[in-house]
Amino acid sequence: MSTSNDDAPPLILICNDDGIDARGIIALASALDGLGELWVVAPEAEQSAVGHAITVRDPVRAHEYDFEVPSGPIAAYSVTGTPADCIKLAVNQILPRPPQLVVSGINQGPNTAVNVLYSGTVSAATEASILGIDAIAFSLCRWDGGDFEVAGRFARQITARVLRGGLPPGILLNVNIPAKPAAAINGMRVTRQARSRWEESFKERTDPFDRKYYWLSGTFVNLDEGDNTDLAAIEDDYVSITPIQHDLTAHQHLDGLRRWSWE
Amino acid sequence: MSTSNDDAPPLILICNDDGIDARGIIALASALDGLGELWVVAPEAEQSAVGHAITVRDPVRAHEYDFEVPSGPIAAYSVTGTPADCIKLAVNQILPRPPQLVVSGINQGPNTAVNVLYSGTVSAATEASILGIDAIAFSLCRWDGGDFEVAGRFARQITARVLRGGLPPGILLNVNIPAKPAAAINGMRVTRQARSRWEESFKERTDPFDRKYYWLSGTFVNLDEGDNTDLAAIEDDYVSITPIQHDLTAHQHLDGLRRWSWE
Repeated sequence: MSTSNDDAPPLILICNDDGIDARGIIALASALDGLGELWVVAPEAEQSAVGHAITVRDPVRAHEYDFEVPSGPIAAYSVTGTPADCIKLAVNQILPRPPQLVVSGINQGPNTAVNVLYSGTVSAATEASILGIDAIAFSLCRWDGGDFEVAGRFARQITARVLRGGLPPGILLNVNIPAKPAAAINGMRVTRQARSRWEESFKERTDPFDRKYYWLSGTFVNLDEGDNTDLAAIEDDYVSITPIQHDLTAHQHLDGLRRWSWE
Repeated sequence: MSTSNDDAPPLILICNDDGIDARGIIALASALDGLGELWVVAPEAEQSAVGHAITVRDPVRAHEYDFEVPSGPIAAYSVTGTPADCIKLAVNQILPRPPQLVVSGINQGPNTAVNVLYSGTVSAATEASILGIDAIAFSLCRWDGGDFEVAGRFARQITARVLRGGLPPGILLNVNIPAKPAAAINGMRVTRQARSRWEESFKERTDPFDRKYYWLSGTFVNLDEGDNTDLAAIEDDYVSITPIQHDLTAHQHLDGLRRWSWE
């Protein structure tokens, strides 16, 4: 869906889950410099693994924040909430007009396979999509460090493409970018979410008062042999572009379940 | 998928997001009394609207908890984390063997339409589904009070049906139950998630130090005229059974997006 307004440059809202001072969001805003009117509304503090949480029991606060891209300062607010809160607050209270596009990231770490469900980065884009706004989540496939500049170039290319054409209603793009030099990346591939899971192994500890507690830890397991998955694309040094949706219905099972005897 | 073991009664793990002392989880456990070996592992405190959050920056703790159903006490633990944390910790650390089924709820309030994405109740069931365990989320369509006993009867019926037949791999059931007397409920209907959104209207307040803050507030809007949705079922006084999945791929758009010129 495109909500362009011929009289004004497209408003692009930028969010993330690593926090407004993270390297990835600075790289993303810088990479998009010149594509439209950029606004940053992002969490004050890191919000990784918050999933699609929203803040309903506490108020949220927003503070103006100094944010620079190569062409100069842009409007920015830090928010005391989750990525989904940021999108809701931005669209309803902060922005001067509806955004044409929401971009989220660049996340430090992959949001491939089942990780999509835990991701605050993807959640910001999902919230935009629920509100009827085109949205893209960007992630760099490396847990620390890495070259956000190469990822930024792909983010700019994909963002420009979506600004031009718009997305089909109800979907957003989940983009994962290999942490490789530009010359080592073979191109872009449209993919599906790989089947996978985490095999958890909680680490048990005992506090000074002899009470047990647990740290969540685990090993990621790819259960999917397909060559058209997000994981396979990254493995093959392609940028992975997965269309995802917030309609969770397993439509392919509706007819089968209707034939069950439920009573 | 069924993981039954002929030598032992089915182990049924019970979770929720309203907290281990909520009326709904007591009603659910009581309703399932006799269907298998019941274990409760649920959040210590209310975790509404946490979505699919997991706790990665802090440790989680579990404490034994006194929990009674009509036939006597059952094993129960309260956990200092999210519903998804509860499932991971239960399956990996607490339970004596893998559960055949995870049930979550009974939530106080509907988890229909877009609310599925924000729901901690559904998230517990989703986490089980990711781990390859059959799972059902139950919600009572009323924000406060209501008769959990009627809802419990439907929960027992649906749980027994799933224990008998198992679910197709990769899906879970999201069940919403009208807050009506049993005689006013017309039956059960397999549905899809309705298209909808919240129209937010943040309430602005000013603190004693003259700083603004916002409370999230909003109006739910049904964007879906279909008669086969979860919202339509509840409107027609049917129990709504929606198969949902954790593969978020918009498969119907893969071919179209592959024809785009991305470079």
